[in-house]
Amino acid sequence: MSEINLLIPGPTPLPPEVMRAMSRPMTSHRGPAFGRIMREILDGLGEVFQTRSDIIPLVASGTGGLEASVVNFLSPGDRVLSVNNGHFCERYAEIAERFGARVDRVTAEWGRPVPAEAVAARLREDTRREYRAVLVTQSETSTGVHNDVRAVREALADHPALLMVDAISSLGAIPLETDGWGVDVVVTASQKALMSPPGMAFLSVSERAWEAAERATGPRFYFDLRRGRAEARKPHPGTPFTTAITVAYAVHAALGLIHAEGLPRVFERHRRMARMVRAGVRGMGLHTLVDDEHAVNTVTTVRVPDGVDGRAVGAHARDRYAVLLGSGIGRLEQAIVRIGHLGYTRQEWLLAGLEALGRTLADLGHPVRTEAGLRAATDSLEAPAPL
Amino acid sequence: MSEINLLIPGPTPLPPEVMRAMSRPMTSHRGPAFGRIMREILDGLGEVFQTRSDIIPLVASGTGGLEASVVNFLSPGDRVLSVNNGHFCERYAEIAERFGARVDRVTAEWGRPVPAEAVAARLREDTRREYRAVLVTQSETSTGVHNDVRAVREALADHPALLMVDAISSLGAIPLETDGWGVDVVVTASQKALMSPPGMAFLSVSERAWEAAERATGPRFYFDLRRGRAEARKPHPGTPFTTAITVAYAVHAALGLIHAEGLPRVFERHRRMARMVRAGVRGMGLHTLVDDEHAVNTVTTVRVPDGVDGRAVGAHARDRYAVLLGSGIGRLEQAIVRIGHLGYTRQEWLLAGLEALGRTLADLGHPVRTEAGLRAATDSLEAPAPL
Repeated sequence: MSEINLLIPGPTPLPPEVMRAMSRPMTSHRGPAFGRIMREILDGLGEVFQTRSDIIPLVASGTGGLEASVVNFLSPGDRVLSVNNGHFCERYAEIAERFGARVDRVTAEWGRPVPAEAVAARLREDTRREYRAVLVTQSETSTGVHNDVRAVREALADHPALLMVDAISSLGAIPLETDGWGVDVVVTASQKALMSPPGMAFLSVSERAWEAAERATGPRFYFDLRRGRAEARKPHPGTPFTTAITVAYAVHAALGLIHAEGLPRVFERHRRMARMVRAGVRGMGLHTLVDDEHAVNTVTTVRVPDGVDGRAVGAHARDRYAVLLGSGIGRLEQAIVRIGHLGYTRQEWLLAGLEALGRTLADLGHPVRTEAGLRAATDSLEAPAPL
Repeated sequence: MSEINLLIPGPTPLPPEVMRAMSRPMTSHRGPAFGRIMREILDGLGEVFQTRSDIIPLVASGTGGLEASVVNFLSPGDRVLSVNNGHFCERYAEIAERFGARVDRVTAEWGRPVPAEAVAARLREDTRREYRAVLVTQSETSTGVHNDVRAVREALADHPALLMVDAISSLGAIPLETDGWGVDVVVTASQKALMSPPGMAFLSVSERAWEAAERATGPRFYFDLRRGRAEARKPHPGTPFTTAITVAYAVHAALGLIHAEGLPRVFERHRRMARMVRAGVRGMGLHTLVDDEHAVNTVTTVRVPDGVDGRAVGAHARDRYAVLLGSGIGRLEQAIVRIGHLGYTRQEWLLAGLEALGRTLADLGHPVRTEAGLRAATDSLEAPAPL
């Protein structure tokens, strides 16, 4: 398989340090050598989650992590409020429904944020305090919208519902102050801003959420997070079932990189890359789906010109220029392409991606100002950093 | 972390070809490049499973694969028969119970096989044909017993219950003729005889099992195997959720090795290694837990001498000789140590493990005939192959 410029919003390319870590020899997931690594992983994740709560690792994709949050903290019949403006918000809601929750949705058009006031209004209407949880996807990767978790928390005010956040494609890329904001459950996965291969999910669990886990009535075994809690609190944690050891080696190395760079600088780097891509897209004469105020710094969704199919753009960029853009999802499949810029990205890869996008549109009969776009992108790097 | 002689019954050491495969660049789990790899993986697994049925990949440990078989093919209230003579048989039964099945167990002492006649008798008693499934663990790794899947299938005779086999630590090490014997569901995982890191599980699903999946009433989302079926039947399959791409790269390479060696020779190699280890153990004057007729060729369970704790033996061998033996599990924790010899093993590693076991016992004040054991082990390699 030849090298490709991978610009999807995860899985992301792997840093050389992470690749090297995966060549460590295999070991036992129950031995002390691995236990020391797992301790450093869980402690390092605590820094990135910005929490002192338990972090529980799972062998699963991010969707498995979302399911774990549903089956541990909700029961059949529970009422749930879904902040819902995209494919991944809807997936979280759908999982909750599949396991018997009664889900109300507070929606917005795809590409627009859900107003916090609308969330607050729905919660105020719940005078009997029946909602058990509010579900929100911080980086709605299908549209490129940044859902404001802090505003949702404020909308909850003193409502006792758990705040459960899908941070799969956001944790470690944009700020999420789990303890500072008061988030009960945060779900993430290894293959996004954690710069590792897919295969593991991680959840932080507040004390209130653990209490809910004791009350939850649905069946769970593999995803029973209480099994992992006893391990996670040991000096040298094992895992209840065999863990994905090479993925754990990768996450361990990636956390070392994040720690060395420092979380504020990691966030700033994501801001700069996002700003550069947006400047490039607009400099070409193209439009982003999301206005800058609500765009997430992990992915940019680009409207393709009228008369072009986003799927054709993606296929041509891949086959002709060896650039893998993210395709549109669901109702946006034909309308957009997505440029991921999270985790291990480099500005030259993103510039090459922008150039390939411009040339692809020209090849397909819709020429854009590719050179002007590239200039605007590089110029943006020299502009003073935004506050 | 220093190099250790890893002799647990999985995760196993990784062949160099598998290590190299994991350094392939990251890619999209939905693109055609990965789809070609996934096609070869599923086809290669079909050879190892000896089936033409669908093979569905999951991101999960083996336990997650077992749970997937329970939630897809059983419903709450279903009656199930568990062939049960060890920790992993009991885990399978426990998962079924957790999801509402009513499980009857046909048991044997740990270290002894469950007589097929006892299974047949229980099934004959079920005159109303209420059992929906029979669960059996082919390689009961906690005791080292080989449960005879073919005999269980014969015991089923014309009973319509599904035969569901936990082949996590056996598939690719000892014969399992999924189609030839008529097994409905086989579950395995990446980190055993498939010589890859942990992180993926694979299930084969017969047409009868798919019919059961349509009738099953319990909730499932992440583990809903029907989601993977449509993908698995494509020329270039993706996966419904992000798959563990580096683990898939590893499995792809390992299947190439298995195909090149040929399944009959792979099985023969496992027979030779098992015979060598058993000869070595007995040559030292130690006893195996299981008689040769019922011992599985993936792991040898060794009784530690009276007055020694198996846990102390394992810790000493690890800390003094850098050999990682498997510890006893559950009620056998103190009574045995386990020597894994499945997947990527080499006779010199096993001989070094036997030597470390002998020296450890001497260090702990229970000297054994270490040299005689090593001679018996190497002599066994020159003896004519058993039929």
